[in-house]
Amino acid sequence: MTTTFENSITLPKGFRAAGVSAGIKKVTGKDMALFVSDTEAVAVGTFTTNQVKAAPVKVSQKHMAGKKGRAIVVNSGIANACTGEQGLSDAERMAALVANLIKCPREQVFVCSTGNIGSFLPMPAVENGIQALAAKLSVDGGVDAAEAIMTTDTTMKHCQIELAVDGKPVRLVGIAKGSGMIEPNMATMLAFVMTDAVADVDALQNCLREAVSNSFNRITVDGDMSTNDTVICLANGLAGNMPLKPGHKDWTKFHDALMWVTHELALKMVVDGEGATKQVTVHVQGAASAEEADIAARAVANSLLVKTSWAGQTAKWGRVIDALGYSKAKVIEDKIDIDYDELPAVRAGKATVTTQQELQWVVAKDKFTIHINLHIANGEAVVYTCNCTEEYVRINV
Amino acid sequence: MTTTFENSITLPKGFRAAGVSAGIKKVTGKDMALFVSDTEAVAVGTFTTNQVKAAPVKVSQKHMAGKKGRAIVVNSGIANACTGEQGLSDAERMAALVANLIKCPREQVFVCSTGNIGSFLPMPAVENGIQALAAKLSVDGGVDAAEAIMTTDTTMKHCQIELAVDGKPVRLVGIAKGSGMIEPNMATMLAFVMTDAVADVDALQNCLREAVSNSFNRITVDGDMSTNDTVICLANGLAGNMPLKPGHKDWTKFHDALMWVTHELALKMVVDGEGATKQVTVHVQGAASAEEADIAARAVANSLLVKTSWAGQTAKWGRVIDALGYSKAKVIEDKIDIDYDELPAVRAGKATVTTQQELQWVVAKDKFTIHINLHIANGEAVVYTCNCTEEYVRINV
Repeated sequence: MTTTFENSITLPKGFRAAGVSAGIKKVTGKDMALFVSDTEAVAVGTFTTNQVKAAPVKVSQKHMAGKKGRAIVVNSGIANACTGEQGLSDAERMAALVANLIKCPREQVFVCSTGNIGSFLPMPAVENGIQALAAKLSVDGGVDAAEAIMTTDTTMKHCQIELAVDGKPVRLVGIAKGSGMIEPNMATMLAFVMTDAVADVDALQNCLREAVSNSFNRITVDGDMSTNDTVICLANGLAGNMPLKPGHKDWTKFHDALMWVTHELALKMVVDGEGATKQVTVHVQGAASAEEADIAARAVANSLLVKTSWAGQTAKWGRVIDALGYSKAKVIEDKIDIDYDELPAVRAGKATVTTQQELQWVVAKDKFTIHINLHIANGEAVVYTCNCTEEYVRINV
Repeated sequence: MTTTFENSITLPKGFRAAGVSAGIKKVTGKDMALFVSDTEAVAVGTFTTNQVKAAPVKVSQKHMAGKKGRAIVVNSGIANACTGEQGLSDAERMAALVANLIKCPREQVFVCSTGNIGSFLPMPAVENGIQALAAKLSVDGGVDAAEAIMTTDTTMKHCQIELAVDGKPVRLVGIAKGSGMIEPNMATMLAFVMTDAVADVDALQNCLREAVSNSFNRITVDGDMSTNDTVICLANGLAGNMPLKPGHKDWTKFHDALMWVTHELALKMVVDGEGATKQVTVHVQGAASAEEADIAARAVANSLLVKTSWAGQTAKWGRVIDALGYSKAKVIEDKIDIDYDELPAVRAGKATVTTQQELQWVVAKDKFTIHINLHIANGEAVVYTCNCTEEYVRINV
């Protein structure tokens, strides 16, 4: 496998993209994106579990039933959520306009929106935007599209990987947005993975579900999502390999590549967390079960007092123990061990000889891991998070 | 009933108090308090449900088994949590020293600590502090004691009420500390209620439990608490009334007085929330059950994005709907109504004609209520909270 990190995107065979400024955002800048596969692709996706779903999510979920796709149209600035019948009709119209321009059934167009809840889309601007996008579609349009889907993101988020399947080059490109990592369940997360692989639709769906649960869901709170969260994968098959599914000799390689793409995108979201200045991994072992390990890790990763202490470059492990104690996971105080990277901070629920000064050297880093061992059973989980700074509040007021 | 609000405390008959600086806190200032009843009082209490309990909580819970009390000794600055056998022995020693000085069984002394987790108490300083407290005990010592239990609190929290029971004056005085209202489950909350009433111990325990669940637990997250949270009520009976319990003609009056005392103290904590500048009441009606109403109200009251939007004086009701949607309470998008005080913001899940400008006038106030009607059934709940400002982060780094 080869991976490239530079700020350019080489789309897989048969994919084109574009990003334009349609005047939806209050601030100037690109606010509409279009991703198109020139041929019909296998389409799979996962959508927000929020009980309140934005209109584009409802429309895309309906269209996804056909498991085939040609395009994804995206706008930033307005979420088209809590907009009733009008919102649904607007989202359907976006799909229909794109379908008409690229000549495909409207059910093969998926729609995503991100931005403020409760406002209607300015449809004349959106319609002009779609015309402009179609005119601008290009194999080099990935970066423009990645820019156009950003909201409070401070950096574009994309990654790409190429691997050999049946001796043929297969490419995966991931493009995402999302940076409200402190309460990610409320900040829309969108991610699109395009590949030219030939893949079995059920195998791809299962693989995407696993990839999402090990990446984007590792950085969310309680597994909850915003009204608009969407992950879509299109595989157009132009690589010409034998259909990928379990049993194919290169399946594991492809599976790992998709896992890598979503994981990279998820970490980019954490690093770009609103106001965040450091990435922290919370690793829990020894819980009563994997589920309880996850609950314990999220209690720590989601504690505002823990997050703010990291912002202050201090290792207030008492706040970590407190979060473990009030979590719904079983903990026994005098069995808890906590390490900051390689430094033991707590053994059997009590402070070690490691000094606060030494622990602060770890917490002062841009990236560190808190290892927690509950010594109850073998449950293990990892959650990725960031610190909470004053800047977070400034961004969100 | 008469209530007094001025910054002085008239303790009930037979109670004395003191507050001194013992040198436990890093900053100068009072850090130890003692409350004493000259005669044996009926004692009831509620303690943190955190799985990790501080040593003083374990000791006080054990002592509470006897349901009798003479004194409460408190230190601020160090929580004596995660301190193992040494911590337990230190907490027991605090009780024993007080018991020796005021001549009572050590089981009649309760111990409370609040402050940093993981450090040991400086026992020589604590021992000197207890000597000083005993020497300083006075009927006028309430204010000193209220000051000594503060940590990040910016104001003392106390209230007092007098009522007639069997024609005799009965007095209740409540003194509390706590201001980490955004994650109150991690910021220690201590509250003490002293009364000279004669009260049946079981009736008093039930009444205190009800009072706590309608006051302090209305401002907590998930009902979780810190490692040190403690509420203790001492009733020494010097008022000479007939024992108060259900059936006594003045029971309701006393019951309501205890409810009022805890509610006042709880609201004082919200108003003094770290960095908070406004008190917000979240009122949910029409939920599937009272429990679901509570879950929905807490999801809103605990959403960082909702709290920061209040700090920005904006009524971003989309964030409120989103929080309702991801809460574990059942909601149906097109049935949700939301009002800001008297102004309708959302009807049937969609924006009303009320302008953002109009809603901002409400949110700009120091105190407002968000009324949410889910129109599913009759479940109702109220939660008190505050906004989240940059100052919160500054305090907690």
